Amino acid sequence: MSNKIRVGIVGYGNLGKGVEMALEQNEDFELEAIFTRRNPDKLLGTSKMVHISKIEDYREKIDVMIMCGGSATDLPQQTPEIAKMFNTVDSFDTHANIPEYFNKLDDITKNSGTIGLISVGWDPGLFSLNRLLGQAVLPNGKDYTFWGKGVSQGHSDAIRRIEGVEDGVQYTVPIESAINMVRTGKNVELSSREKHERVCYIVPKEDADLEYIKNEIINMPNYFAEYNTTVNFITEEEMNKNHKGMPHGGFVIRTGVTGEGTNQRMEFSLKLDSNPEFTSSVLVAYARAVYRLHKEGQKGARTVLDIPFSYLSPKSGEELRKELL
Amino acid sequence: MSNKIRVGIVGYGNLGKGVEMALEQNEDFELEAIFTRRNPDKLLGTSKMVHISKIEDYREKIDVMIMCGGSATDLPQQTPEIAKMFNTVDSFDTHANIPEYFNKLDDITKNSGTIGLISVGWDPGLFSLNRLLGQAVLPNGKDYTFWGKGVSQGHSDAIRRIEGVEDGVQYTVPIESAINMVRTGKNVELSSREKHERVCYIVPKEDADLEYIKNEIINMPNYFAEYNTTVNFITEEEMNKNHKGMPHGGFVIRTGVTGEGTNQRMEFSLKLDSNPEFTSSVLVAYARAVYRLHKEGQKGARTVLDIPFSYLSPKSGEELRKELL
Repeated sequence: MSNKIRVGIVGYGNLGKGVEMALEQNEDFELEAIFTRRNPDKLLGTSKMVHISKIEDYREKIDVMIMCGGSATDLPQQTPEIAKMFNTVDSFDTHANIPEYFNKLDDITKNSGTIGLISVGWDPGLFSLNRLLGQAVLPNGKDYTFWGKGVSQGHSDAIRRIEGVEDGVQYTVPIESAINMVRTGKNVELSSREKHERVCYIVPKEDADLEYIKNEIINMPNYFAEYNTTVNFITEEEMNKNHKGMPHGGFVIRTGVTGEGTNQRMEFSLKLDSNPEFTSSVLVAYARAVYRLHKEGQKGARTVLDIPFSYLSPKSGEELRKELL
Repeated sequence: MSNKIRVGIVGYGNLGKGVEMALEQNEDFELEAIFTRRNPDKLLGTSKMVHISKIEDYREKIDVMIMCGGSATDLPQQTPEIAKMFNTVDSFDTHANIPEYFNKLDDITKNSGTIGLISVGWDPGLFSLNRLLGQAVLPNGKDYTFWGKGVSQGHSDAIRRIEGVEDGVQYTVPIESAINMVRTGKNVELSSREKHERVCYIVPKEDADLEYIKNEIINMPNYFAEYNTTVNFITEEEMNKNHKGMPHGGFVIRTGVTGEGTNQRMEFSLKLDSNPEFTSSVLVAYARAVYRLHKEGQKGARTVLDIPFSYLSPKSGEELRKELL
């Protein structure tokens, strides 16, 4: 019998594929199966594909289920069901619904004796950790989160729904001068427009009204009207060549004052060439923590804020103290 | 009776004074007393000063002792004694001796039923956390730590021992081009000389041999010979005006590859106008964790790697999930 952590992946989109690849970089894991709502026989790949209706058969065979569905509909429906049988880790990221989702999963997992670790990724996730750290260490201060440069799925979807748009992608771009102003520690107040700009690349349909498209975008309330937005029209070829990656990243900056007016600054940043692959890597590290918490006999819902970093590493406490402190 | 966390400070140097100020920014703490080896009547300040020989009288009055002595001789002698009676948090930073110090304190505190949290600060401390996080999330990668620009106490002491030196201070300066090279993610190997340079400011004694001083510095093995070093001679006035602060900071950068060659980067950095005041602020946040662990009935030695970030905040889990995730 193997000593490895036996995991399953639920959902085989960008995130599920990212987890599959991340597991290959971590020798202490064994991927038992990928669960999908599609016909598993029609999916390519070397991993074992199983229809999600059979997931119960794996009760004794899987230590942690890595949930790779979307936050809008998949996770709220799947995780509560699966958490009745398995330990889970997910990247639920609908900020406003996190408290409710946590409480629901907490009830279920306290009953089933499992661990349900939610909202793992970078925001929510590593960025949340850094906001908390900044506030705890420098209580007399202010924190700022900047996102990008990166593709926003929601904004890209919005522009693709406009009449005359064949394809489109939207980048959220943090404004460099705003980041630098924040770094000075002057506790500046910044509006949405001052923090980020939005840059769109559009492949128009033949004979589309470009002026109409542009106006629809830059005046769209909530999505674009509050920002400075640039609209670029490009060819399909250019789109496929330059805009099909999923880069992202951002900055969490905390500036504060200690003692008698001493300035201090903490900053955490990410530069990701693939947002889903990075989120997947975070999920895998936290799956290790889920396994350990369960082995200790713990149960209930958790977030990244509740997990010591030592639980993320395959190394022993002794090794970590020797090598990293 | 107060619901506040009752703390004592042991040692009243830069760090102890920093903790005293940091406590004022955190309403859930109450400073009971500052313990000193000096004559407490001769120390100025509004806090209660007590001779360290009386510390045992405070057994029921203090929840956490914040140890503010130096790592060379104070902490190895004081902490094991005080941990027999109190929960402690310290900033022990002699990297090579951390495992031994941890084991010793673990034995003592398991016996006394207290918590001994060691090596709290930024390096070791927050930088260690970021090295661990980087390795866990991006196992196929490399991490780099740069320090500075900041005053190195050890190097400053070394130059002050040279004949003809009246006063001196040494700054460790990270080399910008090296940081930028690391950020490209090319897994570069860098020598000591390529990562940092050393800049010294010296007030020479009257009639001192400047050429001799300069040669003694730049050829000093272990301290300077492996680095590019600049020596500047200045007046006492200039020294007092520009070089009596204790700025520091640095960078922990992890670059890694996910999937099929995708570059990812994580970076944590600090820019501190006062190194001791920042370390003090970290100590206070972690004193909160010590109090909570003890209240839960835990005992033994711990490091920052073992502490969930939620334990650092005065806010409840519910508040943190709502506001920070």
